[in-house]
Amino acid sequence: MEKLFVTEPDQLSAALCDAHGEMSMASLETRLIVAATRHADMLGIGYRDLMRDRNVWVLSRMSVEVSRMPGILDTYSIATWIESYSRHISYRNFALLDGEGNPIGYARSLWTCINIDTRRPSSLHQLDAELERDCPIAPIPRLGAVGGDECLHGKVSFTYSDIDFNRHVNSARYVERIADLFDLVWHDRNRIQRLDIAYLRETHCADNVEAVYCQDGDRVDVDINGSDGVTMCRARLTIVTR
Amino acid sequence: MEKLFVTEPDQLSAALCDAHGEMSMASLETRLIVAATRHADMLGIGYRDLMRDRNVWVLSRMSVEVSRMPGILDTYSIATWIESYSRHISYRNFALLDGEGNPIGYARSLWTCINIDTRRPSSLHQLDAELERDCPIAPIPRLGAVGGDECLHGKVSFTYSDIDFNRHVNSARYVERIADLFDLVWHDRNRIQRLDIAYLRETHCADNVEAVYCQDGDRVDVDINGSDGVTMCRARLTIVTR
Repeated sequence: MEKLFVTEPDQLSAALCDAHGEMSMASLETRLIVAATRHADMLGIGYRDLMRDRNVWVLSRMSVEVSRMPGILDTYSIATWIESYSRHISYRNFALLDGEGNPIGYARSLWTCINIDTRRPSSLHQLDAELERDCPIAPIPRLGAVGGDECLHGKVSFTYSDIDFNRHVNSARYVERIADLFDLVWHDRNRIQRLDIAYLRETHCADNVEAVYCQDGDRVDVDINGSDGVTMCRARLTIVTR
Repeated sequence: MEKLFVTEPDQLSAALCDAHGEMSMASLETRLIVAATRHADMLGIGYRDLMRDRNVWVLSRMSVEVSRMPGILDTYSIATWIESYSRHISYRNFALLDGEGNPIGYARSLWTCINIDTRRPSSLHQLDAELERDCPIAPIPRLGAVGGDECLHGKVSFTYSDIDFNRHVNSARYVERIADLFDLVWHDRNRIQRLDIAYLRETHCADNVEAVYCQDGDRVDVDINGSDGVTMCRARLTIVTR
């Protein structure tokens, strides 16, 4: 049982790059989730293992911080390991590595095991999977509600293509919708250096969703609220000038 | 120089599946494009090679037909080869292979080489890259304009996350928007067996885009029209009951 899993080095296809010829934050999050999922398979706590008891892993929080993103034809890989594991949750960390194996980013995540019928937390067997390894970025923060007169409001909708096999909105699609609150001119000026995101409630296809967001210096705080006003997802972007 | 390129077998992560626990048509198109891009790199007509003369490949048409899609944790790979190559265009075919290497789908595509400054067709050197190999699906069709009283109209918007490194809308994002004209109930009843799509005009971030679409039996015809009424993208879905 490998406590550290490192993906095969992959060359980033031009076809998978964003407007800046780089891996987008949403796309990086997807790759982190895929690496986590593969490692969970290898540890015997993957999709097939959990589904025997009608359980699945649900991503609850993620914090990603990068010094740079892989660009067109750059080689990269992802290392992942479990920092802490209990019967209901797992704290999993990541390093984004360049072609020489040097870290160019790190991530922290919190996963919850839920039963797909009750949608309530479920129990896993104990597992000796924890690995002590450095993850030199700030812990996952507790984000406060976004609001106030200075906030902007945007309409957001989630459609069929945003839904994953759990029948709720795919985690990375929230990140795209948050990035889409800003236009290309904004993104030409600013690069997202860090993303902190908390998935607070499962979202299904939904039209009357509202983003409430404020930019204060290098920080953008965002709440994605359902039509009932309950927050589905809360995020903070830390930006730097390109 | 390998005239046939086959990607490394990959296991489809649950994290990358659609609401039906399968690879979506948009996601398959992305993988076909990535395989094509990788093969072009290997043939010396890839992104880096073309960019020396400020040229890029632009996908003009694609037809994909599958008997089934890979599901969660299924192994799959993609074979691709050039059917016909001239100085300005390339007809490239694909086979989608299951874990045993058996074809479960095929695709045909037409690519044009354009100069990124003038956005006009550009010239490539001759290349002996053509391969004669069976691609047993109907040719890329010529699709007629969609219109008439029986048509439905839907609003479509393209935002920052839909833009690729060419600074136009990513090809697969049109396929998602077309799938999104229908809700989850429709997709639970119908599976897209074949996609024919023609990219007629480059699209940038745009809000006032309209989809005009008609369903007639197992066929759905769609035009995606810009605010000036000019068609950006035209597609036909052939559907089967799940």
